[in-house]
Amino acid sequence: MINWILVDEIIINGIKEDINNIDITTDNLIDDESLSEAYMFAKEDGVIAGLAVAKRVFEIIDDEIHVTFKFKDGDKVKKGSKIAEIRGRTKTILKGERLALNFLQRMSGIATISSNYREIVKDYPVRIVDTRKTTPGLRMLEKYAVRMGGCHNHRYNLSEAVMIKDNHIRAVGGIKEAISNIKEKVPHTVKIEVEVESVKGLEEAIEAGAHIVMLDNMKPSEMARAVKVSNKRVILEASGGITIDNLIDVAKTGIDIISIGALTHSPRSMDISLNIY
Amino acid sequence: MINWILVDEIIINGIKEDINNIDITTDNLIDDESLSEAYMFAKEDGVIAGLAVAKRVFEIIDDEIHVTFKFKDGDKVKKGSKIAEIRGRTKTILKGERLALNFLQRMSGIATISSNYREIVKDYPVRIVDTRKTTPGLRMLEKYAVRMGGCHNHRYNLSEAVMIKDNHIRAVGGIKEAISNIKEKVPHTVKIEVEVESVKGLEEAIEAGAHIVMLDNMKPSEMARAVKVSNKRVILEASGGITIDNLIDVAKTGIDIISIGALTHSPRSMDISLNIY
Amino acid sequence: MINWILVDEIIINGIKEDINNIDITTDNLIDDESLSEAYMFAKEDGVIAGLAVAKRVFEIIDDEIHVTFKFKDGDKVKKGSKIAEIRGRTKTILKGERLALNFLQRMSGIATISSNYREIVKDYPVRIVDTRKTTPGLRMLEKYAVRMGGCHNHRYNLSEAVMIKDNHIRAVGGIKEAISNIKEKVPHTVKIEVEVESVKGLEEAIEAGAHIVMLDNMKPSEMARAVKVSNKRVILEASGGITIDNLIDVAKTGIDIISIGALTHSPRSMDISLNIY
Amino acid sequence: MINWILVDEIIINGIKEDINNIDITTDNLIDDESLSEAYMFAKEDGVIAGLAVAKRVFEIIDDEIHVTFKFKDGDKVKKGSKIAEIRGRTKTILKGERLALNFLQRMSGIATISSNYREIVKDYPVRIVDTRKTTPGLRMLEKYAVRMGGCHNHRYNLSEAVMIKDNHIRAVGGIKEAISNIKEKVPHTVKIEVEVESVKGLEEAIEAGAHIVMLDNMKPSEMARAVKVSNKRVILEASGGITIDNLIDVAKTGIDIISIGALTHSPRSMDISLNIY
Amino acid sequence: MINWILVDEIIINGIKEDINNIDITTDNLIDDESLSEAYMFAKEDGVIAGLAVAKRVFEIIDDEIHVTFKFKDGDKVKKGSKIAEIRGRTKTILKGERLALNFLQRMSGIATISSNYREIVKDYPVRIVDTRKTTPGLRMLEKYAVRMGGCHNHRYNLSEAVMIKDNHIRAVGGIKEAISNIKEKVPHTVKIEVEVESVKGLEEAIEAGAHIVMLDNMKPSEMARAVKVSNKRVILEASGGITIDNLIDVAKTGIDIISIGALTHSPRSMDISLNIY
Amino acid sequence: MINWILVDEIIINGIKEDINNIDITTDNLIDDESLSEAYMFAKEDGVIAGLAVAKRVFEIIDDEIHVTFKFKDGDKVKKGSKIAEIRGRTKTILKGERLALNFLQRMSGIATISSNYREIVKDYPVRIVDTRKTTPGLRMLEKYAVRMGGCHNHRYNLSEAVMIKDNHIRAVGGIKEAISNIKEKVPHTVKIEVEVESVKGLEEAIEAGAHIVMLDNMKPSEMARAVKVSNKRVILEASGGITIDNLIDVAKTGIDIISIGALTHSPRSMDISLNIY
Repeated sequence: MINWILVDEIIINGIKEDINNIDITTDNLIDDESLSEAYMFAKEDGVIAGLAVAKRVFEIIDDEIHVTFKFKDGDKVKKGSKIAEIRGRTKTILKGERLALNFLQRMSGIATISSNYREIVKDYPVRIVDTRKTTPGLRMLEKYAVRMGGCHNHRYNLSEAVMIKDNHIRAVGGIKEAISNIKEKVPHTVKIEVEVESVKGLEEAIEAGAHIVMLDNMKPSEMARAVKVSNKRVILEASGGITIDNLIDVAKTGIDIISIGALTHSPRSMDISLNIY
Repeated sequence: MINWILVDEIIINGIKEDINNIDITTDNLIDDESLSEAYMFAKEDGVIAGLAVAKRVFEIIDDEIHVTFKFKDGDKVKKGSKIAEIRGRTKTILKGERLALNFLQRMSGIATISSNYREIVKDYPVRIVDTRKTTPGLRMLEKYAVRMGGCHNHRYNLSEAVMIKDNHIRAVGGIKEAISNIKEKVPHTVKIEVEVESVKGLEEAIEAGAHIVMLDNMKPSEMARAVKVSNKRVILEASGGITIDNLIDVAKTGIDIISIGALTHSPRSMDISLNIY
Repeated sequence: MINWILVDEIIINGIKEDINNIDITTDNLIDDESLSEAYMFAKEDGVIAGLAVAKRVFEIIDDEIHVTFKFKDGDKVKKGSKIAEIRGRTKTILKGERLALNFLQRMSGIATISSNYREIVKDYPVRIVDTRKTTPGLRMLEKYAVRMGGCHNHRYNLSEAVMIKDNHIRAVGGIKEAISNIKEKVPHTVKIEVEVESVKGLEEAIEAGAHIVMLDNMKPSEMARAVKVSNKRVILEASGGITIDNLIDVAKTGIDIISIGALTHSPRSMDISLNIY
Repeated sequence: MINWILVDEIIINGIKEDINNIDITTDNLIDDESLSEAYMFAKEDGVIAGLAVAKRVFEIIDDEIHVTFKFKDGDKVKKGSKIAEIRGRTKTILKGERLALNFLQRMSGIATISSNYREIVKDYPVRIVDTRKTTPGLRMLEKYAVRMGGCHNHRYNLSEAVMIKDNHIRAVGGIKEAISNIKEKVPHTVKIEVEVESVKGLEEAIEAGAHIVMLDNMKPSEMARAVKVSNKRVILEASGGITIDNLIDVAKTGIDIISIGALTHSPRSMDISLNIY
Repeated sequence: MINWILVDEIIINGIKEDINNIDITTDNLIDDESLSEAYMFAKEDGVIAGLAVAKRVFEIIDDEIHVTFKFKDGDKVKKGSKIAEIRGRTKTILKGERLALNFLQRMSGIATISSNYREIVKDYPVRIVDTRKTTPGLRMLEKYAVRMGGCHNHRYNLSEAVMIKDNHIRAVGGIKEAISNIKEKVPHTVKIEVEVESVKGLEEAIEAGAHIVMLDNMKPSEMARAVKVSNKRVILEASGGITIDNLIDVAKTGIDIISIGALTHSPRSMDISLNIY
Repeated sequence: MINWILVDEIIINGIKEDINNIDITTDNLIDDESLSEAYMFAKEDGVIAGLAVAKRVFEIIDDEIHVTFKFKDGDKVKKGSKIAEIRGRTKTILKGERLALNFLQRMSGIATISSNYREIVKDYPVRIVDTRKTTPGLRMLEKYAVRMGGCHNHRYNLSEAVMIKDNHIRAVGGIKEAISNIKEKVPHTVKIEVEVESVKGLEEAIEAGAHIVMLDNMKPSEMARAVKVSNKRVILEASGGITIDNLIDVAKTGIDIISIGALTHSPRSMDISLNIY
């Protein structure tokens, strides 16, 4: 579900950052022959994501390590649950512990908050999606974690879909001009999304052939009107100022998509530890 | 205060992640000649960190951009404050906006939470320090942000200082054995820290020549006793289970160092936006 | 229109490949102080693409070189036309010549063949698009050259748009199952294309909500029927077995898109040379 | 016969280009457990090159894939021939298919055209060699393919052999000066080639101690005279304006080497497909 | 004892440097199937270091090679001793031979000279340590070799420990100012070393709280006085102008640490060869 | 005379190794605004090489630094001579000092020893050349330094020239077989060198068409005989067991080339320092 060649590069980068030339404590105190068994366990309830990434950390350090899982990504775990078992060199376990947890805790934190948002709107035909407000270098992992939490992704990067914002519109002279201009240029495989601030803008965008219209910072009542006006002709996305508290009001408007930057820009890491038996 | 060669690598990696082959919207709608002025501003109070990193994002995309700051890293800014001014190609501003903000918001988030922790204990001769619970690939930037928030750093990586934990002690047979063993091997420039769970362990560690002793998950009352026993012979560090709520109680024990994983593992991004005039 | 950070990496890779440790002839025979003026010129008619890439080759070798253009990418040039002027160190011109031409000739070759295909169908409302049959490592440059030749791009890579082929359909059990399955998972910003081999498949795909349907290896008569059946409900793409000879017949069917692997998998390099005055 | 460490880098670069973060179709529709058998087959006659490179593409994606060959590089295959069999995860086959074919088709295209040139002169004691007009980043693979087609390589890069051209000669003052100057400097392991435009130049070059003389754009009759004059004292290379049509006339002159840019700058990809059984 | 992820990068870099696209002799003359057995042996007495690095060279070229050792790093070997046995493809042995020896000979040269220095002072409670005068890119391997020769390492890099030199002192205004200034800033895990040129400087440094004081270019008599003055309050390090000839005089002063740049900046490679049986 | 793109990569690698995330002393004690002037000077006689590399170290850290030279590479300098002047930020000078000197001292050490060897044979028409016994990763710089010391280079890497050794000969069945076999395969631009152990081998090699013959570990008397037998038909290279002491005897034999591993495998660094005024 992700490109493992990129994961390996991210992990190797992380190992170089955390170990540099030596783990001066472990390399000096623990024998190569010393073997241990360890487990990772949840210290709070949450949704797990990143198991295979954490496993890969240990494997890249030492290809004779064995990591097995008690859960799979996307599972809800309870405080106290054992998540994974690790067998192999004590050295490897101690060297990889922090980095493996740094990935697993962050990704599970994102999955957990995503799941919380999803839970609130689960009775509505609406998608919660992430944004490009991800940690530089970790977008692939963070967007994967969002999916594991039951939410969806917005476009991956600036090349994948058109998103016409206010500044683009001003530069070209109008919504209609911007859409017709760009339609001539981009691949037929690419969708065009336009950000509007009013129902009038929405109507213009629909007429010009937008596939998706983002309603920027609208109040729920205005969104409801937009839903009515659109009448399923475009995908409607609500964005801006939506929190866990007003989420349900937005969902009730009949909007198709709600984008939430907080899924990735401010997740609390899930509390997970590793113990050697 | 950081190695800019590494910053450039991190930024280039981020640009490749966010733009891939093209910014399909901006590259198609905005002319190379179009110029704009823009500003970044705070949407909430906080401590700023990462200004030069954000600036560098734009410069790497286009060396004819001009970015100037109204504040410097470590400054407290109020909601609504203009933080930076940007002049140059409209294309460059639109392409770099998200990545620049992704760095600046995360780093400022860390500086802000660090500042909050620091504020609480500012009347005590104690340091708040971070941990290795940083985002893989961004440790240099995150530890810098911690400093900008008025806190201090713990060791940077596994090679820089010895940290003898329970598993190391068990492997070697005892605190004394572990310390004397490793003292023979590591550079004379390296400090030795030992994690203990009791005052008895503390005494053993001091006797064996530890430079720093980490009191793991001790109650404040026990810490206070440790402070008395140590009597300044070693640096005492409190770790585990310390939150913004019990922080003051820990500080009052007379401990030298308090390490807080949450400074880097769960910061909320500071809300900062970029507007084109 | 392309990401210059990636271009620089491609060029540096090319320089290392072509020069390795030394240009043993030029570095030994030509003084650093020796200056020259040179020009690149077309040895046959064609459409130019890659001027800025060629220029960048010289600049990366030596930032005191000056390269100016007589044309811009996408222009048609006649045999004998001077395309660019270069002033600077003789050494730099001689070292960069081959690599600069290797880029410019390949990219212009692609632009030229693209322009030839485009010319044939210019009176029809149809797009000629490329495929993923590009040279490994040069896709960004080759797809750019296709655009400079007046054609369009298909999806950039496997992550950008869904393309459901026969094997995917078989794995899931049917066109309908495949589309509804994947619709639940992919971002709302992503289009879904399905490959079908019959009009019956087309109808199924339309019903299931495909955005684009690729008619695989159909005869023009069958395509015409598909166009009628579709009645603009989806974008129709013809693919397979289309050459410069039967292109017009395909265009006449009213199809929206014709994809041509040959634009990038087998272009003849355009004949361009560099002379020192 | 090539450096596999470099091949791996080229392939990984290609995978990142083609998959980026996800194969959004295959990763969403095909299970990890789904297994398939597939084969690659020739859709036209040709000479195969790059089998092991294509195999390595699949192996880098998934080390549990099995690829076996029915031919070896350099073999002539007939339209319809099965070239390779692949067994393993369906996902892996679908993800690697395009990149593997992109390598194999390009390399086989070069081998095929090389073989065609070679065939024409096979009764003459002359070598057909390639040039540095290769695709940036793929020179190693393309020069290997030339060898598989029965031709030979010219120098690999600018560091490997001296090639004194007109501009070098002008800079130093004459053929003799250029050769004697550079002879003093370059390793004794390096050959010196000089480009001349006349038999007079050839005589000068021989006298000065050149090992190889390139006859630039000479007519066959002039070449024949050069062969006589040289009388085996140097290796004689014909270059410039030689096509498949006048090749035999050049070969008949008794020249030692004929260099042909078209072997690598304009090969048609060989038509090869992959089918899942 | 070192980070193998970094070793692999160093080796791969070395292979690319030494082989580039092909080992033109071995790849053309030796069959893939040809197997050989070979051994590496000492052509002079010395201390071995780098066995696993040499082994890894062969393994990275070909994972079916078998390398076994007769000694371990740090062992003294006599002229003529077999050090390692290698079984596998003849090609692999011939391709990896030079690079493997280049690592092993350099590292063993450093271990040998380190052992020689160590031997001289072995009856004194003093450490011989290295400096940052290492070969760019190979510091990790060279500092490891120093340890294998029985000596110790100084700080690994500029980030790991503070070293206040004359220029830093001048910039801040005095030893005391420099130390108190930096103490406020650096992690509590970092030691502070100060370079002084007189006993007066030493006293100032001790008072200000330095952990280590480097006595720069002092005569042994002056060092002895410094040892007395310090009275174990700080670690004393002698540096500058110390050679194998005056080493014993320095050791006799009671100094704790002697740093010797020559361990890494000017080692003679140990003479080691590889023979195929 | 070298590829600066590769130099930059080597230097950046070196900076990352030496500074990692921070120069903890300089970054904390020296202001960005503090400016200094400094000079590098010889502490012993020698031949300088690597000035531009040392300069580039400072420039990569800070593009506002100014470095000027009093000498040029290849110049002999006397003890006490100022070699270079540096003006700019104090921080930059202190951060770059060690790495710049590490390059300059090593390269100058190689140039100096090369010059010493060269001096001994300066009245004989013989070249002293280096070998592949270079430091992994620094071959380009080391071979350049050899040239600056007045000696020459042997082949740069395994791809650049054929070197048939004993094991290759045994694998193929004889000197003649090996040479004729490889002649068919390698580019006409590549020279063929063969290693022989007797005059008989030399005769065989000449007959088979070798360009260069290496006389392995021969005594001077035997070499003299080989020179006579060869009678200028091939280039004769002496190798093995040649030291500064017997060098003149080898030169007197009339041999063309003497290869000396010690030029690069065991040079003493030249003693050079940097002082801030």
